[in-house]
Amino acid sequence: MTIKLGLVGTGTVGGGCLDILRNHREDFKRHLGVDMEVVRVCSRNPEQAEARGVLHLFTEDFNDIINDPEIDIVIELIGGTTAARDVVLGALRAGKNVVTANKALMATFGDEVMDLAREKNLEVGFEASVGGGIPIIQPLKHSLISNEITSVMGIVNGTTNYMLTRMVDDGLSYEDALAEAQAKGFAEADPTADVDGFDAAAKIAILASIAFNSRVKLNDVYTEGIRNITQLDMDTADDMGYVIKLLALAHRTPEGIDVRVHPTMLPKAHQMAQVNGVFNAIYVTGDAVGETMFFGEGAGAGPAAAAVMGDVLEVARHMTLGIPPVVGCTCTDNLPIVPMEKLSTKYYIRFSVADRSGVLAAMAGVFAKHGVSVRSVVQRGSAQHETVNLSYVTHTASEASVRRVLEEIGGLEDVLRAEPSVIRVED
Amino acid sequence: MTIKLGLVGTGTVGGGCLDILRNHREDFKRHLGVDMEVVRVCSRNPEQAEARGVLHLFTEDFNDIINDPEIDIVIELIGGTTAARDVVLGALRAGKNVVTANKALMATFGDEVMDLAREKNLEVGFEASVGGGIPIIQPLKHSLISNEITSVMGIVNGTTNYMLTRMVDDGLSYEDALAEAQAKGFAEADPTADVDGFDAAAKIAILASIAFNSRVKLNDVYTEGIRNITQLDMDTADDMGYVIKLLALAHRTPEGIDVRVHPTMLPKAHQMAQVNGVFNAIYVTGDAVGETMFFGEGAGAGPAAAAVMGDVLEVARHMTLGIPPVVGCTCTDNLPIVPMEKLSTKYYIRFSVADRSGVLAAMAGVFAKHGVSVRSVVQRGSAQHETVNLSYVTHTASEASVRRVLEEIGGLEDVLRAEPSVIRVED
Repeated sequence: MTIKLGLVGTGTVGGGCLDILRNHREDFKRHLGVDMEVVRVCSRNPEQAEARGVLHLFTEDFNDIINDPEIDIVIELIGGTTAARDVVLGALRAGKNVVTANKALMATFGDEVMDLAREKNLEVGFEASVGGGIPIIQPLKHSLISNEITSVMGIVNGTTNYMLTRMVDDGLSYEDALAEAQAKGFAEADPTADVDGFDAAAKIAILASIAFNSRVKLNDVYTEGIRNITQLDMDTADDMGYVIKLLALAHRTPEGIDVRVHPTMLPKAHQMAQVNGVFNAIYVTGDAVGETMFFGEGAGAGPAAAAVMGDVLEVARHMTLGIPPVVGCTCTDNLPIVPMEKLSTKYYIRFSVADRSGVLAAMAGVFAKHGVSVRSVVQRGSAQHETVNLSYVTHTASEASVRRVLEEIGGLEDVLRAEPSVIRVED
Repeated sequence: MTIKLGLVGTGTVGGGCLDILRNHREDFKRHLGVDMEVVRVCSRNPEQAEARGVLHLFTEDFNDIINDPEIDIVIELIGGTTAARDVVLGALRAGKNVVTANKALMATFGDEVMDLAREKNLEVGFEASVGGGIPIIQPLKHSLISNEITSVMGIVNGTTNYMLTRMVDDGLSYEDALAEAQAKGFAEADPTADVDGFDAAAKIAILASIAFNSRVKLNDVYTEGIRNITQLDMDTADDMGYVIKLLALAHRTPEGIDVRVHPTMLPKAHQMAQVNGVFNAIYVTGDAVGETMFFGEGAGAGPAAAAVMGDVLEVARHMTLGIPPVVGCTCTDNLPIVPMEKLSTKYYIRFSVADRSGVLAAMAGVFAKHGVSVRSVVQRGSAQHETVNLSYVTHTASEASVRRVLEEIGGLEDVLRAEPSVIRVED
């Protein structure tokens, strides 16, 4: 029995998938008892298909794949939520299993996709949608199932982690770090999805849905990016024993799921603080297993293709054994999302203020008025004449109170010289 | 359908398993569609069973579990390779699936166990045998299957990692670190299995067997422990930018499988160098995925029980779905084990030698004679009168040549003042 694959998308990940099958088809037969063959390839780009040696399998119309009765598994690698959604839903409707690397699709239409798969008794693999080659969805759906997962924290965007690493290690500015990431091909010409945190938000939505058995969608995730991180914040964090990372966080709380993406100060000794460059890591805490971390390359043709083909092989293994899907949608609960205002955590807040007497006292008064207790405050001069930087670290405080502090200090007459920088602190 | 469990062993891990089921039985029904119940418990210790609230299920004879037609899955947690082997093989012969945390058993009789399971069409889960709660066997048997795994490196013994961490962080001697580990319950009264590397050897045998699809047994693993590590070696490593870890290593080479356990100098910047205390980590490199690491708590009731119950739930899930075992023995190849003499790596070698002229030159001559190229040599005084320590780091050299160097320097008249310390270097 040879499992027939239809590949939609012939970019770098698609190319990586073709390479894996070319290199290891005989190994898969011997080790797994699974034989597989790509029988059709769809792309908008025949030159790309030719370069990958699959022009003879080429079509420009994905319906040729969906409607091909011979095809068992459709691999969707075109990204986005329009054509990709048609491909995935169309393939399922036509009775084909699906493997996708599409985080945006799964974080937005994951319920629709998984419901249809269940109805059709088909499988949908999406390991590659989070963390590149790092096994994390499989471990959450299998190895860790004896746990109640209490939190998931991830460095899941390689572009921003590369930029932050360059900023902290080599003193680059945000702009220079971004330009370098773009030059190296780690960041897109329009870097919004990465630097504003939306890519990470889609990934934590997927992880939280599985970890907490309750659907979390992209729109549920409070999201802040790294555009406002300055070298001064980096230095202050360093002095205080922290590093700044763009973290995707999801916590199970008595009130529901707290899920967010934002720059976060992590103690240098934390295992995640040492995840640098384009590497990703996902830190999972369970009630029995305690703390675990999954680390690896978060992007690139090889890692993403390894995850895609791992899913394809798993589905093919089930088909070869003649068994139904083992695990489908795991969202059996319906937990509320905790609104961001209800968050309680520690905060780093840097104000750039007028350098004159009375300002520090006025600000201290505002913190006290709203019940935000200050752990430390550091004053530093600024390059701007008559401006100083005041960096506060609070004890645990509510987001709502901190917002009131920010609002009221913003309203103090002739005090603020720039937008305050707010970074949450994870201890 | 309620899956009936028989538990053999009521120690800390067994207690952890009972706790998990007690806390989450309803969750498992809701999330996984799996209902499970412990119906019999075997132990040599009725008091322990009573303390865990399962005296009413108690038997002293494991045959009562093996022969109970009601029982679907037998959980073996007694350890060792005698009674445990009888329990595991007996359960399989009686048509019951097995979950075990027994690394010694799987590293010694794994082929016998897996062959019998295949013959009987039954499952054997052993995730807990390596890395405590860290998912590693499942990821190797599922998520990473699209890769040719090129190497597996593990810090898989929490006791020795705790000791080495205390030695490097707080300057404890080996003896003091061991005494402390024993006082804290991390080390046994007889610490041989941990400090001499046999525990780690069993674990890397299991990991290598799966990673390379070829059976590796405990006896195949070259094993050195940490008894000879001194504070001087720690300090020298630190000066050179390394930390010393007890690593379990398995490499796929053109000549076969190179598999060993020994103290190893790792660069401080390596992700594994930062795995401290009782934490474990397994670093897996694949041809497509690149570098990945799995990190977590390597021991303790919670983590080990989480892994055991994860396996139990997976088997129960398959039984509930009415499907046969998905993955059994994966040793489909038969690769040779590379003898240790064929190893090529870098070496740190410390000699304690007589402090007199001519010694350094004579030693340099021996290194040159055997073609072992020296990268650096550092001389330090010693507390002993008229003795100095010479620490060499070599370029890549063959184990055979290094052994000849050691032998010949050992034969130099009145030169050595103590056994040389040899630590391999991984860059």
